[in-house]
Amino acid sequence: MKLNKLWSVAVALLLAFPAMAQQTKQFTLDELMWGGSSYWQLQPKNLYANFWGDRLVELDVEEVKALTDEKGKKVKQPQVLFTLDEVNAALDTAKWGKCYSLMTQSFPSGKETQCVLTTPEARFLYDWKTKKVVWTQAQPKGTQALKAASATRHLAYVKDWNLFVQRADGKTLQVSTDGTRELQYGLSVHRDEFGIHEGLFWSPKGNLLAFYRMDQTMVSDFPLVDIDHRVAQLAPEKYPMAGMASHKVTVGIYNPATEQTVYLQAGDPTDRYFTNIAWSPDERTVYMIELPRTQDKAELVAYDAATGQRKAVLYTETNARYVEPMNPIRFLPWDDTKFLYQTRRDGYNHLYLFDTTGRELKQLTQGQFEVLEVLGFNTKTKSVIVQSNEASPIRYNHYSVSVETGKRTLLDNGRGVHYAKLSESGAFLLDRWSAPDTYRRVDLVATVKPSQLQLHTMENPYTGNGVPPVESGTLKAADGRTDLYYRLVKPANFDPAKKYPAVVYVYGGPHAHNVDESWNYLSRPWETYMAQLGYVIFVLDNRGSENRGFEFESVTHRHLGDNEMADQMEGVKYLRSLPFVDADRLGVHGWSFGGFMTTNLMCSYPETFKVGVAGGPVIDWKYYEVMYGERYMDTPEENPEGYASSSLLPKAKNLKGRLQIIVGYNDPTCVLQHSLAFLRACEDADTQPDYFVYPGQGHNMMGKDMVHLHERITRYFEDFLK
Amino acid sequence: MKLNKLWSVAVALLLAFPAMAQQTKQFTLDELMWGGSSYWQLQPKNLYANFWGDRLVELDVEEVKALTDEKGKKVKQPQVLFTLDEVNAALDTAKWGKCYSLMTQSFPSGKETQCVLTTPEARFLYDWKTKKVVWTQAQPKGTQALKAASATRHLAYVKDWNLFVQRADGKTLQVSTDGTRELQYGLSVHRDEFGIHEGLFWSPKGNLLAFYRMDQTMVSDFPLVDIDHRVAQLAPEKYPMAGMASHKVTVGIYNPATEQTVYLQAGDPTDRYFTNIAWSPDERTVYMIELPRTQDKAELVAYDAATGQRKAVLYTETNARYVEPMNPIRFLPWDDTKFLYQTRRDGYNHLYLFDTTGRELKQLTQGQFEVLEVLGFNTKTKSVIVQSNEASPIRYNHYSVSVETGKRTLLDNGRGVHYAKLSESGAFLLDRWSAPDTYRRVDLVATVKPSQLQLHTMENPYTGNGVPPVESGTLKAADGRTDLYYRLVKPANFDPAKKYPAVVYVYGGPHAHNVDESWNYLSRPWETYMAQLGYVIFVLDNRGSENRGFEFESVTHRHLGDNEMADQMEGVKYLRSLPFVDADRLGVHGWSFGGFMTTNLMCSYPETFKVGVAGGPVIDWKYYEVMYGERYMDTPEENPEGYASSSLLPKAKNLKGRLQIIVGYNDPTCVLQHSLAFLRACEDADTQPDYFVYPGQGHNMMGKDMVHLHERITRYFEDFLK
Repeated sequence: MKLNKLWSVAVALLLAFPAMAQQTKQFTLDELMWGGSSYWQLQPKNLYANFWGDRLVELDVEEVKALTDEKGKKVKQPQVLFTLDEVNAALDTAKWGKCYSLMTQSFPSGKETQCVLTTPEARFLYDWKTKKVVWTQAQPKGTQALKAASATRHLAYVKDWNLFVQRADGKTLQVSTDGTRELQYGLSVHRDEFGIHEGLFWSPKGNLLAFYRMDQTMVSDFPLVDIDHRVAQLAPEKYPMAGMASHKVTVGIYNPATEQTVYLQAGDPTDRYFTNIAWSPDERTVYMIELPRTQDKAELVAYDAATGQRKAVLYTETNARYVEPMNPIRFLPWDDTKFLYQTRRDGYNHLYLFDTTGRELKQLTQGQFEVLEVLGFNTKTKSVIVQSNEASPIRYNHYSVSVETGKRTLLDNGRGVHYAKLSESGAFLLDRWSAPDTYRRVDLVATVKPSQLQLHTMENPYTGNGVPPVESGTLKAADGRTDLYYRLVKPANFDPAKKYPAVVYVYGGPHAHNVDESWNYLSRPWETYMAQLGYVIFVLDNRGSENRGFEFESVTHRHLGDNEMADQMEGVKYLRSLPFVDADRLGVHGWSFGGFMTTNLMCSYPETFKVGVAGGPVIDWKYYEVMYGERYMDTPEENPEGYASSSLLPKAKNLKGRLQIIVGYNDPTCVLQHSLAFLRACEDADTQPDYFVYPGQGHNMMGKDMVHLHERITRYFEDFLK
Repeated sequence: MKLNKLWSVAVALLLAFPAMAQQTKQFTLDELMWGGSSYWQLQPKNLYANFWGDRLVELDVEEVKALTDEKGKKVKQPQVLFTLDEVNAALDTAKWGKCYSLMTQSFPSGKETQCVLTTPEARFLYDWKTKKVVWTQAQPKGTQALKAASATRHLAYVKDWNLFVQRADGKTLQVSTDGTRELQYGLSVHRDEFGIHEGLFWSPKGNLLAFYRMDQTMVSDFPLVDIDHRVAQLAPEKYPMAGMASHKVTVGIYNPATEQTVYLQAGDPTDRYFTNIAWSPDERTVYMIELPRTQDKAELVAYDAATGQRKAVLYTETNARYVEPMNPIRFLPWDDTKFLYQTRRDGYNHLYLFDTTGRELKQLTQGQFEVLEVLGFNTKTKSVIVQSNEASPIRYNHYSVSVETGKRTLLDNGRGVHYAKLSESGAFLLDRWSAPDTYRRVDLVATVKPSQLQLHTMENPYTGNGVPPVESGTLKAADGRTDLYYRLVKPANFDPAKKYPAVVYVYGGPHAHNVDESWNYLSRPWETYMAQLGYVIFVLDNRGSENRGFEFESVTHRHLGDNEMADQMEGVKYLRSLPFVDADRLGVHGWSFGGFMTTNLMCSYPETFKVGVAGGPVIDWKYYEVMYGERYMDTPEENPEGYASSSLLPKAKNLKGRLQIIVGYNDPTCVLQHSLAFLRACEDADTQPDYFVYPGQGHNMMGKDMVHLHERITRYFEDFLK
């Protein structure tokens, strides 16, 4: 175990002023939790901004002000570009209604003084130089999805599961007519796996629309029930469980000019995944990354957009465990014959340069770190701007990578966790970041000669108060060699001579992490609350979690839970070694995969954990869906031992401590069958879990139920761990 | 308050031997609860017997023995009539399979040496004198209902919601073909209200079959979910909620000889109840008691069984609150022109003699007590044998009532609670009874010159052990004048100097009572368990409960909960006056209507009750069904104030103490909507109830879940009331 050196100083400073901490108010859950009525009162003022070309403008309801000039220099006296009143004066409000806010604008180009705005009835382009509305377009209502082609202004939308296109000339074309809940057009498919989150893809020049069509008539319905009627109503969810019949997806190309659709000739869609749709800049070719249901192969395939004909397989990757393409290819803006492909084939997520013949030109990035996001390009310097964790597995920083030399240049301060947006030319980043000692900051970052212009600082609202000390460090995993990052939150007004109860907060599944170098090492507000009540909170990102490379993640393949728990027990060993932790009062809490982990830990280590709260838990992977479930577990037929040994149903009999399971009654992700089957198993085995449901809520609680939920979780530990 | 004098002596005796009590083992829930694996081990040997004519025979798997002779005298050496081996030797077991037990036999007549027995494939008549099988009849399988006409041996049954008759000649006739879950033939209707519990009614001579047909296509489905499949399945329940569209019932008469059906011409069945079907002895007339949906009127109507023609309305009764006929008419065995009608029109349930023209001849019983059951007749003495609570509201005794003079003669010992079966001629009763000091006894009672022959005594298995003292007495209701009966269970090894926590167990609704003069005043086994853990248990039958007459029950009309709670609070007042009760540690527990009461008390008197456990609660009567709901509450449209003020949803915000709601996940009686809507209301009001469900269970737990449930209930009080 080694503490992160840099921030241990900050922690030491915090520890040095216990007197200061004692002066303070106790935070309520209503203040701490998103969804609480006083949450926003506690938050310091934020800066909302957007790029107009390479210039930054501040977003506001009433007016739009320029913050920087095109060279990235701060405007001395922020200049008002236009106001809401001016916009409404120019608009035919009798016909289109009023524009109510300038917060949701976008600037098509830095070369024009134009801005796209909306009313409840329409979207329109306003020119603040001429003070005129350039065009107005009616907005369809009651849509399930909507996407505009900015170049042509065609609008694609989905209504009652059918696809429509409202052409720029105002004519509405119904593309499909047989859409139903079971046969959907233009919506996301494959349960949002493989990076998919939408079903409408306009071509770069806005002339063609690629869209998903998903036939799920063969998929069994899970009977969700909506109690928000006097007589509860069935609200079925098409839910293919691991090994069972799955939906069939096809991809269509619609041409609003000819009013014709062609489908990509990908062959029989049974048990196949069509992912990561991309267009060639000339709109002639559509690319997909295709996987068989086994997910052990990914093929980049090119199709003729006009005919739907399959043209070529450009690249194939196989992996005995799984391949998981998450990013569509991206063409270089300065060369239509070359694109970037992302894969973890060397163990980490990196960029590779290909040409359109499928020739691999080179590996652009390399090393034991992950490229987390491609933000775009700087065409002038021919570089790609990426976010990666090169500096440390728990840091997110931005780099410019020269496509020619592969040279990487750090753009930001190299510490903390940065999320950014790239300007039109790629010259600037709007960088929002935090670090263990920095609550939140907004900078303008130049991508050519890196510099950071500080625009806004959000002061830490948690100062001077019963704020708990937060530390981070690493432990060795159960394999004895892999470093794992942890966060340790000590009780407010910490007294090292005392013995405190401790709660392990856990997620532990893929595609997530709980410890990074953002403010307080990503500590969740509830941890502050618990620390104020006198708990130690411990969080460890075990093997299987994200951003640490393929081997780290996929070691869990076919036996989810085993290595994850072994690592968490290393964390517990460390926790128990701390003189201020009462080893007889250990609790555990987690949601979703963390609910699986919590229930598993409670039943596998009944002598270790006295109290657990498991939210929306997976109980048996055979109840989980096809895409995620089979990636990590294969099918129940292929991996019967893995399914049997990872199931928590046979472990129900081991339960000794107090375990409360909490679920959203309408959870479509981790269906109620999990928790109910576990209750049934406990009832049969004569063990006594506790249970709670939130009617109307899904997999995660929304709104003020978040406050209620955390009162509930806290009360359970207060009842049984104190 | 006055103690029941007789039993206070017994209680005093128990109290006098605390040393004895201390020697003892603690009972486990597994021993105490029906469904526990060791329940039967604790129970002393019972006597199973049946009448063969006027003789009693003992039932056993292997052999049948005569216990008494036809004069009611004990047979000195019980004589074996026949054995299982003899039966199987006589049976064509190759064709019909073996008979496995002689426990489920019946004797058609005391004049024959014949007995009806079954194999899994057939029913058959065995003659133990000739040692021959007289007839054998195949038994249809997979039936939803089955009823034999003993005189003709026709078998009526329901399969896949259609009605079939298997004639004595072996021919199977399909009576209906359009039966579905939504259109049912031959099953119980009106959700088992009005004393209805079946849908097949053979005429006395077995030539005609009256049957119910229920069309519920217009009734909304409540979406119950069965998780006993890998993908949970919808298991919808037709559930008409108060004020909503209800099902339509008609009554058919099927003639197996002509193979024809006629329907009773009762008119439009919309919003009507057809109840209490009875046959005239000559099979020519069918009688029903008909009610409009308002339930404020009952009409006894006669129909021609051959044509279905409506012949006459023989009797009409109205009541501004409600009329609730629960018993079909019964003809006098010695006079086909006269029948008994039961009604509470004078305030108590009594017998009236009518003739078939509808002339009311006389009121046969009278007084401030209830006729609880008509067991049958003694034709020789022209008397009717009834069970009533004439001796005390909490005693059940048997009386013979002379039809001519109305004179009532007590048949049993006049104390305790007696349940009996009448012999063929009506000369004897097989009387199973208990009393506060008598665990259980079986007597043969002569109905002519009353005498009791003691056949069997089940010794109290709870002796000499940490058995709690149980007392009973009366309190005044909140109206200041009505006597209410209570039971008080003191902790085992009671120490009057100590302060104990107390739990009120409550039902409080109609058609039930919790206190009577059976063993330990009807104390439930769980009360013994709780008393062993050091709790006082208090149970009070408030106004609205059964057996106390119409005014007592119906005072709750249109505002369920109000008077019931007021009475329970009188009980609490008394409880608090007891020096050994800790007034700061009061709990409450109840199921169904008692779950409604528990939740109501917790939310209406949050300062009184610290902990509550509510099982399968009604939360809002608008979610309850039409027949029961509208009887007591009218419709939501007719009684909006009553529905609003009795709803617990607005009271969710008052919850302060710990309340756990427990439900069967597949409860078809008090659907999940109740508890889920309450949780939602609590979540919105930021109060924190607890919740638990038993998947696969209905309104009441079955089997070993009863043990699990009571561990759970107990644990909750142990967690928060101790």
